[in-house]
Amino acid sequence: MTPPPRGFAEAEFRSRVTRIQAKMQSSGLDAILVTTEPEVRYVTGFLTRFWESPSRPWFVIVPASGDPVAVIPSIGAHLMGQTWLNDIRTWPSPHPTDDGIGLVSDTLAEFTPPKGRIGVPSGAETHLRMPLKAWAELQSRLGARVFAADDDILRDARMVKSPAEIAKSRQACAIANRAFDRVSQIAAEGVPLDQVFRHFQTLCLAEGADWVGYLAGAAGQGGYGDVISPATDTPLAVGDVLMLDTGCVWDGYFCDFDRNFSVGPPMTEVATAHSKLLEATAAAFEAAKPGATAAELWAAIEAVVRGGPDAGRFGHGLGMQLTEGLSILPHDHTILREGMVLTLEPSVEVSPGRLMVHEENIVITATGAEYLSDPATGDLPVLECRP
Amino acid sequence: MTPPPRGFAEAEFRSRVTRIQAKMQSSGLDAILVTTEPEVRYVTGFLTRFWESPSRPWFVIVPASGDPVAVIPSIGAHLMGQTWLNDIRTWPSPHPTDDGIGLVSDTLAEFTPPKGRIGVPSGAETHLRMPLKAWAELQSRLGARVFAADDDILRDARMVKSPAEIAKSRQACAIANRAFDRVSQIAAEGVPLDQVFRHFQTLCLAEGADWVGYLAGAAGQGGYGDVISPATDTPLAVGDVLMLDTGCVWDGYFCDFDRNFSVGPPMTEVATAHSKLLEATAAAFEAAKPGATAAELWAAIEAVVRGGPDAGRFGHGLGMQLTEGLSILPHDHTILREGMVLTLEPSVEVSPGRLMVHEENIVITATGAEYLSDPATGDLPVLECRP
Repeated sequence: MTPPPRGFAEAEFRSRVTRIQAKMQSSGLDAILVTTEPEVRYVTGFLTRFWESPSRPWFVIVPASGDPVAVIPSIGAHLMGQTWLNDIRTWPSPHPTDDGIGLVSDTLAEFTPPKGRIGVPSGAETHLRMPLKAWAELQSRLGARVFAADDDILRDARMVKSPAEIAKSRQACAIANRAFDRVSQIAAEGVPLDQVFRHFQTLCLAEGADWVGYLAGAAGQGGYGDVISPATDTPLAVGDVLMLDTGCVWDGYFCDFDRNFSVGPPMTEVATAHSKLLEATAAAFEAAKPGATAAELWAAIEAVVRGGPDAGRFGHGLGMQLTEGLSILPHDHTILREGMVLTLEPSVEVSPGRLMVHEENIVITATGAEYLSDPATGDLPVLECRP
Repeated sequence: MTPPPRGFAEAEFRSRVTRIQAKMQSSGLDAILVTTEPEVRYVTGFLTRFWESPSRPWFVIVPASGDPVAVIPSIGAHLMGQTWLNDIRTWPSPHPTDDGIGLVSDTLAEFTPPKGRIGVPSGAETHLRMPLKAWAELQSRLGARVFAADDDILRDARMVKSPAEIAKSRQACAIANRAFDRVSQIAAEGVPLDQVFRHFQTLCLAEGADWVGYLAGAAGQGGYGDVISPATDTPLAVGDVLMLDTGCVWDGYFCDFDRNFSVGPPMTEVATAHSKLLEATAAAFEAAKPGATAAELWAAIEAVVRGGPDAGRFGHGLGMQLTEGLSILPHDHTILREGMVLTLEPSVEVSPGRLMVHEENIVITATGAEYLSDPATGDLPVLECRP
């Protein structure tokens, strides 16, 4: 498979900003200020792992009309200069007394009326990425202007993906698929779990991941205690269920799915649980189409797994972040639309305190859904025991 | 080299909390509320890559006396249960109307007097990791209690590392050293830069990294335009300077240093620049000792590289984050203390718009400093040209 092109055409960014600005008008916002990595990247295309450094704040302003303006540390000027943005303002950061607040407040003042309303993403799954002290200073500098929630405009815009975005997620999924297909090369009875984790990341890179943004998993007799733990050096043992859950990144887009393996032949209850997980995933996939709701996908899964109200969410949106947008939960009534990328992630309790979780990635199409991951079928794959 | 033990003894966490609580008393704080990954981990030991998911807020409360209390999504209960904390309160998250705010406000109310002061990390290099809307709700629920800056108590506590923390950074550095020693196996004329990035991450994993939290770099004729870019697929060419800058993670602690390579024999100005970078690093290393300031290290480097005021910072603190704590800048007068882990990171402009940057990691000792990375010496390493 030929990888899709990297980056996006300028027209795609213009279309994103036009949609955002249309909603800003309905919401009465004169600008939106964004500070987090995915939000900045969504409107600019600025892609770097440098966000791993928390030392500097970054700002992008989407005005009511016209192109976005970047107000960023000078260390980012060269890379931001390669995006579609023309108005890029920089300051030498870190700075002990004014780390960009003077510049961003002047720029906001330039692009908004004196009593203007400035939207800031304020809802679920986002935060303000700047020191609280600097936030207080920014509000104080802007006097009569009001900072308000952005009415989830950024979140909603990001939830429906373009074909170019979907192609990147599909590529990330294809990479992880190929890595999962090779797990029997790196995992068997006696191999320490931390070595499995290390080698699995190597497989993801070998298959084309830009980086492995996320890897969690577990191994335990007849299931595992949780799905977020780092690896220990405990060797895999016969009867263990090994689960690997990865977020490989390709051109800034994540996959997020897992696979389970049995070390030696699975216990009956493990095999049963695995079948139930696949059945639940298939039921959610059947229910997934434009007009259905996240809650309906939850109900389709719950009808199979019968986890009860405390089972946690059974999937979520996916894109530039490992998890974003909707949650597959009984109270999330988000209506599915063509272009949404989701995970389906049922879980079952095999025995008290022992879980199994299965996860696939899908995209909502005009008439239904399509798998981005190669969906697992059949029996739980069995890893080798020592001869 | 045998790796150090993973995790920390309970006594280490108790000592951290005792120091924090002593400063809270001086600052008149009845509790500190932390929300970010390194801050939560510093007081609890909770280590997971699950923070990559932004969907759920996490809270830890350090009361004026007694052990910290975790108020976290139920998906984290099993893993948090393996830390030294006993008081772990959970809610089913994500939740659309009350994603933990009721529980964390009740818990804060339990541990603070009715007009108490609650500290929140608010200064440089931190932020509040929760939705702004939820923050407003939390403040409103706690009525007469005041949220205040934590006077950088968390930041200052984290700046001086324990021997066990230093051992983890040393291990991360040793892993990256071994990977850098193998770069000639993966990089030569004609190899696309993105392949070099992918293979370098594989080397880091092969040498023992838990994961590769950061990789940036560049390749360009006679230097590069910036140091934060992701890789392109441009093949390495004779005359390129290749720079790889990595943050490998071992047991949750970063290294952060880079190496430069010349594809074929280096241009004279590149060789000169490299020598100057090593000389500047050595000068800063000589100046690094308890009682010296960050600004003095900057001056030692600046005396060699003569970059002027816009050259950016020449290093920073390092630990659970790729960058944390002090900045090697003329206005940062932080006094160096035994146990601080730093990067020394001089840069020079080889020609207009063409940089070279060199970076090493050190720890401040009782009498001076010690390298954690194997310091580069001698000439710029040369990568193979096609035969």
